[in-house]
Amino acid sequence: RINGERLWDSLMEMAKVGPGIAGGNNRQTLTDSDREGRDLFKSWCEAAGMMLGVDKMGTMFATRPGTDPDALPVYVGSHLDTQPTGGKYDGVLGVLSGLEIIRSMNDLGIRTKHPIVVTNWTNEEGARFAPAMLASGVFAGAIPLEYAYDRKDPDGKSFGDELKRIGWLGDEEVGARKMHAYFEYHIEQGPILEAEAKQIGVVTHCQGLWWLEVTLTGREAHTGSTPMNLRVNAGLAMARILEMVQTVAMDSQPGAVGGVGQMFFTPNSRNVLPGKVVFSIDIRTPDLAKLNGMRARIEAEAAEIAEALGVGCAIEPVGHFDPVTFDPTLVERVRSAAERLGYSHMNIISGAGHDACWAAKVAPATMVMCPCVGGLSHNEAEEISPEWATAGADVLFHAVLETAEI
Amino acid sequence: RINGERLWDSLMEMAKVGPGIAGGNNRQTLTDSDREGRDLFKSWCEAAGMMLGVDKMGTMFATRPGTDPDALPVYVGSHLDTQPTGGKYDGVLGVLSGLEIIRSMNDLGIRTKHPIVVTNWTNEEGARFAPAMLASGVFAGAIPLEYAYDRKDPDGKSFGDELKRIGWLGDEEVGARKMHAYFEYHIEQGPILEAEAKQIGVVTHCQGLWWLEVTLTGREAHTGSTPMNLRVNAGLAMARILEMVQTVAMDSQPGAVGGVGQMFFTPNSRNVLPGKVVFSIDIRTPDLAKLNGMRARIEAEAAEIAEALGVGCAIEPVGHFDPVTFDPTLVERVRSAAERLGYSHMNIISGAGHDACWAAKVAPATMVMCPCVGGLSHNEAEEISPEWATAGADVLFHAVLETAEI
Ligand SMILES: NC(=O)NCCC(=O)O
Ligand SMILES: NC(=O)NCCC(=O)O
Repeated sequence: RINGERLWDSLMEMAKVGPGIAGGNNRQTLTDSDREGRDLFKSWCEAAGMMLGVDKMGTMFATRPGTDPDALPVYVGSHLDTQPTGGKYDGVLGVLSGLEIIRSMNDLGIRTKHPIVVTNWTNEEGARFAPAMLASGVFAGAIPLEYAYDRKDPDGKSFGDELKRIGWLGDEEVGARKMHAYFEYHIEQGPILEAEAKQIGVVTHCQGLWWLEVTLTGREAHTGSTPMNLRVNAGLAMARILEMVQTVAMDSQPGAVGGVGQMFFTPNSRNVLPGKVVFSIDIRTPDLAKLNGMRARIEAEAAEIAEALGVGCAIEPVGHFDPVTFDPTLVERVRSAAERLGYSHMNIISGAGHDACWAAKVAPATMVMCPCVGGLSHNEAEEISPEWATAGADVLFHAVLETAEI
Repeated sequence: RINGERLWDSLMEMAKVGPGIAGGNNRQTLTDSDREGRDLFKSWCEAAGMMLGVDKMGTMFATRPGTDPDALPVYVGSHLDTQPTGGKYDGVLGVLSGLEIIRSMNDLGIRTKHPIVVTNWTNEEGARFAPAMLASGVFAGAIPLEYAYDRKDPDGKSFGDELKRIGWLGDEEVGARKMHAYFEYHIEQGPILEAEAKQIGVVTHCQGLWWLEVTLTGREAHTGSTPMNLRVNAGLAMARILEMVQTVAMDSQPGAVGGVGQMFFTPNSRNVLPGKVVFSIDIRTPDLAKLNGMRARIEAEAAEIAEALGVGCAIEPVGHFDPVTFDPTLVERVRSAAERLGYSHMNIISGAGHDACWAAKVAPATMVMCPCVGGLSHNEAEEISPEWATAGADVLFHAVLETAEI
């Protein structure tokens, strides 16, 4: 078993870096706080005797050598970046549980045939730079490196420039590493495990996603002196499209979601009808055909809504991954580890995207989940109990040891 | 007749200060560009032999003395501030036509019994600090000075601090001046005069306004892993309220408008359902009972919409003026001046708010309007012809001279 108290202490220590405004964190990717978090994690890895490699996406790989020089490493990872108003566990739990596994192996004098590499992927959240899971996407060959470097935050700063600025541009080619297996431990971010009173989620699949960026072009005009029938009202088109996304999601039940998180009005003045409205649509479901059907319907109906108002409508996909089926052998190892350790468990489909989704493209991969209070995540109030954290880390420990071979 | 070429040259000169990105202007109130515009206007006033006073709201009063030391001044004014993506004429035409009248009187050696005061009101647009017509509102006693000083821009800077910062905090008590009459010349900002092929709008009324600031409180949550039925979706509530505002405006036809210009999502991240959505509603009509009825219906229905989604809803009025009836004697002077000068004219109700609306509370007041291309305003593409500009300034000149008594 891992040392749950030490894991919790490290979680609380990391949470001091980039504090939020309501008890959570604002440690967005490639900010000064991200740098500070990386530096802290690096110091912990070095103290645990690991060797650090960094790739050209800034992803950190901390290696504990194996006994067989020819054996490919087992990777254990997640992310240290957070949402602007993020929780203390989303991502961080997975990275620091990877570290805790190594610390426990050191304590117990355990050696493995395969090296173990604890990984902190850059820009998992996608809050500052779309898409999410950017570095793992490049690693898996799904996203070109140059495209990633060109991503811009809302202030117009590019991923490439910011990576250099915080000093974490590494020299490893992205994706050059070969993996024996990839494990990721994460809070559920949904309500199911808590509702079902299970300690462990055995993650069999992850739902797929489309992020669509909608740009509506209306005509800037005075809100007072422009008669209703002469308006080219991009704001009204936005409202109708947002309602339509809700309808499409409800029509796609069960097992589908759709929503809007990001919104920009231009010029954003109370007495000017917006000339431009840019907003994001996020749709997900584990069913590939349904996912693409939702996208097609949204694009078609958005175009109709806009056209009826004379508003220009351009829709660009800015994030995507297909639904994922995790590796059955690894999934079974997670399940049997939970069983062996006496933790209650159930199969679960990940509602959120994870770096494991991209890793699954290039290696056998799976995930372990623990509950979170009220299913709440991407909220500073995100909460888990130390017991939940420990249970999942124990399961991760066992599944990794079995895969890395003692 | 005034010197139309000189007026146009001054308009083009002022348009160089705080240029926009598409041929218009971004000279928002109390910015460095506003200061530069004020300095230029001041130099022109001094060159025309006028004496400048500045009040505690930063409003500029440039006086040409009259022949009767006991006669109250005739005021001619408008504003030099613009929207973030504003046109070159909205407000500026009125201030610089006031200046042109003085220049023409100087050329022609005309003296008047009453002094004439050319006025540049601070923060007419209300784009940076709500409400619009802030300085004239304080002048008329409708808005307390301290309330005005406390208004915040979206970056949290206060009106009072910014007024000091640009060096235009004057020492005159606001509203201490007494007016014999107030005239304001402005572009229509709507489509009627052009459509009716009239050179002059004789402004009989101005529609009233409510600006409502809606704050919706949802629950920040993950867009992917939060099931549809567990969402407390402030974005969806916003969409429904925006559509409802449109419905209320359409139900209130003819002679009413409603729209949304300003929108803020928090935390504004693609994979977070917004915890907070703040947006502005702008409703107007010349009918007081209808105006207040629209407000009441919007507040009631917004509360219902939000409640049905479990979303918190607070609505705060951040701008208001009742419909205005301008002074019949001054209105008749404008009409007869247009007639005398041979300009085509028609009665019109102002769709936009103007400082004249507040001035009308404390003095006989009216307005003169000229057409603008396509009725377009609050848009950098706002356009008028030099002939239109000249016609309105001529009418203003005659109406002012008749009132100030030669
Ligand atoms: N786990 C997580 O919140 N990842 C962010 C990417 C997503 O939106 O699913
Ligand atoms: N004239 C003008 O655009 N004033 C701004 C105040 C308003 O929104 O009507």
